[in-house]
Amino acid sequence: MTILETIRGPRDLKALTEAELAELAEEIREFLVHAVARTGGHLGPNLGVVELTMALHRVFESPVDRIVWDTGHQSYVHKLLTGRQDFSKLRGKGGLSGYPSREESDHDIVENSHASTALGWADGLAKARDVLGERGHVVAVIGDGALTGGMAWEALNNIAAAKDQPLIIVVNDNERSYAPTIGGLANHLATLRTTDSYEQVLAWGKDVLQRTPVVGRTLYESLHGAKKGFKDAFAPQGMFEDLGLKYVGPIDGHDTKAVESALRRAKRFHGPVLVHCLTEKGRGYEPALADEADRFHTVGVMDPLTCEPLAPSNGPSWTSVFGDEIVRIGAEREDVVAITAAMLHPVGLTKFAEAYPDRVWDVGIAEQHAAVAAAGLATGGLHPVVAVYATFLNRAFDQLLMDVALHRCGVTFVLDRAGVTGPDGASHNGMWDLSVLQVVPGLRIAAPRDADQLRTQLREAVTVDDAPTLLRFPKESVGPSIPAVDRVGAMDVLSRDADAGSDADVLLVSVGVMAPVCLGAADLLRERGISATVVDPRWVKPVDPALPPLAARHRLVAVVEDNSKASGVGAAVALALGEAEVDVPVRRFGIPDQFLAHAKRGEVLADLGLTPVEIAGSISATIARRDAAGAGAPEQAGPTGTERAGAAGEENRA
Amino acid sequence: MTILETIRGPRDLKALTEAELAELAEEIREFLVHAVARTGGHLGPNLGVVELTMALHRVFESPVDRIVWDTGHQSYVHKLLTGRQDFSKLRGKGGLSGYPSREESDHDIVENSHASTALGWADGLAKARDVLGERGHVVAVIGDGALTGGMAWEALNNIAAAKDQPLIIVVNDNERSYAPTIGGLANHLATLRTTDSYEQVLAWGKDVLQRTPVVGRTLYESLHGAKKGFKDAFAPQGMFEDLGLKYVGPIDGHDTKAVESALRRAKRFHGPVLVHCLTEKGRGYEPALADEADRFHTVGVMDPLTCEPLAPSNGPSWTSVFGDEIVRIGAEREDVVAITAAMLHPVGLTKFAEAYPDRVWDVGIAEQHAAVAAAGLATGGLHPVVAVYATFLNRAFDQLLMDVALHRCGVTFVLDRAGVTGPDGASHNGMWDLSVLQVVPGLRIAAPRDADQLRTQLREAVTVDDAPTLLRFPKESVGPSIPAVDRVGAMDVLSRDADAGSDADVLLVSVGVMAPVCLGAADLLRERGISATVVDPRWVKPVDPALPPLAARHRLVAVVEDNSKASGVGAAVALALGEAEVDVPVRRFGIPDQFLAHAKRGEVLADLGLTPVEIAGSISATIARRDAAGAGAPEQAGPTGTERAGAAGEENRA
Repeated sequence: MTILETIRGPRDLKALTEAELAELAEEIREFLVHAVARTGGHLGPNLGVVELTMALHRVFESPVDRIVWDTGHQSYVHKLLTGRQDFSKLRGKGGLSGYPSREESDHDIVENSHASTALGWADGLAKARDVLGERGHVVAVIGDGALTGGMAWEALNNIAAAKDQPLIIVVNDNERSYAPTIGGLANHLATLRTTDSYEQVLAWGKDVLQRTPVVGRTLYESLHGAKKGFKDAFAPQGMFEDLGLKYVGPIDGHDTKAVESALRRAKRFHGPVLVHCLTEKGRGYEPALADEADRFHTVGVMDPLTCEPLAPSNGPSWTSVFGDEIVRIGAEREDVVAITAAMLHPVGLTKFAEAYPDRVWDVGIAEQHAAVAAAGLATGGLHPVVAVYATFLNRAFDQLLMDVALHRCGVTFVLDRAGVTGPDGASHNGMWDLSVLQVVPGLRIAAPRDADQLRTQLREAVTVDDAPTLLRFPKESVGPSIPAVDRVGAMDVLSRDADAGSDADVLLVSVGVMAPVCLGAADLLRERGISATVVDPRWVKPVDPALPPLAARHRLVAVVEDNSKASGVGAAVALALGEAEVDVPVRRFGIPDQFLAHAKRGEVLADLGLTPVEIAGSISATIARRDAAGAGAPEQAGPTGTERAGAAGEENRA
Repeated sequence: MTILETIRGPRDLKALTEAELAELAEEIREFLVHAVARTGGHLGPNLGVVELTMALHRVFESPVDRIVWDTGHQSYVHKLLTGRQDFSKLRGKGGLSGYPSREESDHDIVENSHASTALGWADGLAKARDVLGERGHVVAVIGDGALTGGMAWEALNNIAAAKDQPLIIVVNDNERSYAPTIGGLANHLATLRTTDSYEQVLAWGKDVLQRTPVVGRTLYESLHGAKKGFKDAFAPQGMFEDLGLKYVGPIDGHDTKAVESALRRAKRFHGPVLVHCLTEKGRGYEPALADEADRFHTVGVMDPLTCEPLAPSNGPSWTSVFGDEIVRIGAEREDVVAITAAMLHPVGLTKFAEAYPDRVWDVGIAEQHAAVAAAGLATGGLHPVVAVYATFLNRAFDQLLMDVALHRCGVTFVLDRAGVTGPDGASHNGMWDLSVLQVVPGLRIAAPRDADQLRTQLREAVTVDDAPTLLRFPKESVGPSIPAVDRVGAMDVLSRDADAGSDADVLLVSVGVMAPVCLGAADLLRERGISATVVDPRWVKPVDPALPPLAARHRLVAVVEDNSKASGVGAAVALALGEAEVDVPVRRFGIPDQFLAHAKRGEVLADLGLTPVEIAGSISATIARRDAAGAGAPEQAGPTGTERAGAAGEENRA
């Protein structure tokens, strides 16, 4: 039996000797490399926090003491130490979540995988504790990268102001978020790291100065009595102390004893304290340590020794298609520049950065700044492309609306991981963008269905200089090209019944990657004698003016999107039809009003009924009900709203 | 002719003598007090930046040099100095905007009235300048309050990292945003302010230390050569310099000569510089200086001498109804606490703060933190009420979704100034909340129609402890109570045709304060022989399950909301009808996909057609078209979707 297997909860950690702790750390790393290689998941971040997590659980009494993990992808060690050692289905349906999960354990508090939230949570938890007169420590563990997020600053500012509110902030400083952490703060932390010798310097200064009498006291004492003290001249932790935070560090985060001692000191302090731990991402696993691109932050299923992927590759990813095309565009257009928020590699900007290093900026985990700086860049005469994960754009909604769109800036947003992403769970799905962004005046949104469309629409997007544009595409591999059989307005008709002319029973409006699903549904409908047209609007906002007249030639419109049904493309289509007085019923197929648990993307879509079989079944049931009630055949009226004012009524002719 | 009248543009300022500048400052203050008293507007902030603005326009060459005003409500002096001296219709239809406006002048860049954006804009503008090899300075003017916003931190972090990118940040430090600025940063700035004497201290230190030889150099030189230097031990500007920003200050912001000299120094520096100016909000106007509650930040039309309001009061405001009721709730429920983002007075929490000072927190201009801290407070056992302006909640969308809603926290958001606000223009309207928030799983949204409903629904909201709730109401006075004549589900029927039973031609779904408009429209419809039911769902998300069956008894559903038509309540109602297979046509009345220029609220609503006459006209035209086409009378079928599967088809019976 390994030591790890004997750990049923944090309590079991406390009896271990120093040697056993060291052995346990080894075992945990061994476990992580093999377990994560089997399922895929976050590897590097967890290898870096082994000792830190052990120390936290030895010094504090979770769950009475509350440990809040920022971003949460570094909670695997925490899971192992709190009774969760079955990693066989990690991130899979029914298996452990890749993030903290309140369903799994009382030791978990925050499930949100978006960075920089832990300090705000901790501030709230500490205030509630004090209002209710309860006991218990509140500890927030946050990475140096996450400190670049504005929320962290807002929280620090509030935490520091609450001088009598005990709260412990552990900064896990590994010098990188995904990419190396950038910005002024990063430089400041780097300075902290490189002043190992300041204690010696201080000793020397003290020695010299104590021999210098000034007005009855030594000069050292005089200086020391000044607000920040002489020590600060050499130990620039000043920034945190300027805010009013007690600073402890820097500490070697792999020295369990040192970390424990720092945490115990922090625990005794009756106010906010920041404990600065230096850790090494990927610690103990050579391939991770050797990889500058940080590809071991998250890994797929792989051979832990050779690091070769074991899952078959399905061809190029959406990300790489974007990444290659933006390099080509960059060669043709010197005004095209790119912005990423700590995700240069994951969003596919690596090659662009290599080709045009002076035209790309990684702004840190700072989506708000990405959007506002883009507004400034556009106003200054450039065309910025802001590439982020769809789920993270929610952080910059106000800035997209008020800075980019209100100022009619030509900025192109590229949303990777849009729609259902799957294994990363509820907070990684990018399933709200097509709803939330409907309200942004002037914004044009494209949902490319294949690689060709992605390339074409990206080029269309960057030529728009007086309004924002946005492209969204999913995770994983891009499928085969899907040709258009016709065009109506600027929309691609992907399939229609030859004998129905331009009229049919059902108009399937396919959003982006739902095209194969819609084509499959159309085939199934035809087998049942229901004629169908499949149209891909390509640009889903604004609604193409040719859509209402096309809809008027059908008995039913079905809009299919991998996005929230609430107020998505379906809602926009319904509005456009209503404004054109086209009262063909609209059915929306998408994601219901709920958060989605982790599972494979395909599994999630199937559970939601976003499959050809389910969609065709639902549509034919509706058609059958309408047939039974005598609702009519498609209209043959003219194409414009006014021309065919009586459209809805005309349904009755059949 | 006054000196002010001779100023046609910034160039005219440069020839003025020191005495003339002082006189001009006087004239500007005199002008502002009288002009703003006539129209209402932002007074305090502008009185504080008279000398600072004059100095900026003397030192820089706008518009070649770009001056970005954060928040923009302090740009009146800038307007006066850049050719805009007709303030007679300030903030009124066709008059000057209360914020910078690119339509008005080339000297204006950023129109967004949301705080903390200027640094991000400046970073983008400076980067564009350098990529394009252009010249010109970029200057961002930002208040100390706005520095508490996370975006400012994200931007500072990026600006500081660009060491060779000239960019000037002017911090206008008046120790308050709306309320006094709070937080750790505020304390830090306060320290900076109170170290006026540090130069003397430094001189003394230098004197002593220069006489102390160390290893061939003086001790002073040795210390001075250390990273931050001895000076920092006494001048705690450290925080900014830790980030890598050159710091100049603090400067008396009312000493034009001192400000100009600091700005000229900053202009010569080849990198980012922060110039710290101390100013006095309301400077030169006694009533403003004497008012601790900062009611002169924005004023209504008033007598400039007595400060008495000249516009008639229309009774209590929505804000005060909320403010009184939350105090009563607070007395009954010790777990109810409140959060505001630098807006304690404007959102009506003054009395709550007086009654329960330990249960209210002003987090600064930090909506993200407000939402996340609320999640923490709720998880810790309290019920937080987060009171903000509707337009500012957009800043916390991700946090409401991912922290509050995903974690099913019992947090009540109270959105003041929802819908069309009017004079503050495009970026102050709260007209997107009912759209954007539709996607938040579990969130319940109330739109109270009158004071009684506000009180009742607030009480309903704070009893929900496993999901977020939200109330939204507009600016201005609350109207008379509107009684319900019946209830269907949890919805109030406000009006119906006695002889139509529960069936009628049109179902008007009235959202919140649109009730009088809907009642008016119903009356006009009846005059034209069209029967109408007016229903107020009270809770507009989720859609009441009783709505589809009710809708099925009508020929047309019209949803009326002072919110974006895109994906608002109308979209939600249309979805609910579709899911229940009720295919009664839905028409949505709301705000089209555009930004709204400043004007009075009533003028804006009229321009948008949100009046009884326009709505009744549009509805009767639709009914007439449907009549002409033979579309039928209301259905008499059963109330559930399955029972009345053929609903849409049944329209044909008439």
